[in-house]
Amino acid sequence: MSGKDIEVEGSGKHCHVTRETLDALYGEGFELVVKKMLSQPGQFATPHKITVVGPRRSAEVTILGPCRKADQVELSQTDATSLGFSPPIRESGDLADTPGCKLIGPKGEVEISEGVILAKRHVHMTPEDAAELGIKDKQIIKVKVGGGRSLIFDEVVARVSPDYATYMHLDYDEFNAASISSSNHVGEIL
Amino acid sequence: MSGKDIEVEGSGKHCHVTRETLDALYGEGFELVVKKMLSQPGQFATPHKITVVGPRRSAEVTILGPCRKADQVELSQTDATSLGFSPPIRESGDLADTPGCKLIGPKGEVEISEGVILAKRHVHMTPEDAAELGIKDKQIIKVKVGGGRSLIFDEVVARVSPDYATYMHLDYDEFNAASISSSNHVGEIL
Repeated sequence: MSGKDIEVEGSGKHCHVTRETLDALYGEGFELVVKKMLSQPGQFATPHKITVVGPRRSAEVTILGPCRKADQVELSQTDATSLGFSPPIRESGDLADTPGCKLIGPKGEVEISEGVILAKRHVHMTPEDAAELGIKDKQIIKVKVGGGRSLIFDEVVARVSPDYATYMHLDYDEFNAASISSSNHVGEIL
Repeated sequence: MSGKDIEVEGSGKHCHVTRETLDALYGEGFELVVKKMLSQPGQFATPHKITVVGPRRSAEVTILGPCRKADQVELSQTDATSLGFSPPIRESGDLADTPGCKLIGPKGEVEISEGVILAKRHVHMTPEDAAELGIKDKQIIKVKVGGGRSLIFDEVVARVSPDYATYMHLDYDEFNAASISSSNHVGEIL
């Protein structure tokens, strides 16, 4: 981060799984392989995929590691419509009354009763960066991304924790709507 | 339109063709069938598709009628990336220095030297509605679409003409980024 500028990253459809779900889908004690470390400390992309079965069709979804306390499938609106889900917009971990689905891995299947969401757009922030900007945890802020398809992202939740690095996360609908690219990936906090 | 509220519509990938291109792709004198009249007076969707051949892959694209003075293929950023194009953001008809491509129809092929664009986001307005809002033709305005994925669309060009009805047009990246649906399709001009 520099001044009020924040780096913007796009997230494709992905899922988080519990240790138990990973055992069932990939076999007892299966260890996730780190394909690429992500910007948030300790988080990583894996080469592993699972099939998410929607009411209309299925899709392969990448597992992000490490394992978490709850299974969670994060889709864009485009993905959700394609699969036939109508998930609510939620913060990560806030999964009550969200759609469930079947997950299929190479070694088995799991039926989850909840966990499919559209991720609420958010920024991760270190306490230092948040203090400098006068932003509190859970505060709703606006972030402008410039260029010929400039968008002001409203309803962006700031999530502040010493476990985080300061980045904005958007899904690919949001990313592409603003034509964000490698030359144009910095937002301005308004 | 009512007050500062404007109805928002999403456009999928589509193309406009000249009479000559339609002759080449669908046969001499072929008449476009009206599948559905669109919100802009005289404009209509057709059941006819053509194949747009991109550097990476091809896609079927719907022809909108009636025929126009220039061939034009309008893609979302997602479509463009998938097909392998890097088109600029342009207003309809402003096609100099845009990518060309091959178009394939049931009766033949045409190579166009330009015409592939990302449509600049825009509102169509009647002169009466524009006057009421104090907006001039070509003015850049902001439009906010509410809800849990509220977005403020910046860099929206107002196009004012007695040939238009007052509607905002977005592509499906933009539409889905704001989770616009039948219950949530009205923008507020800021």
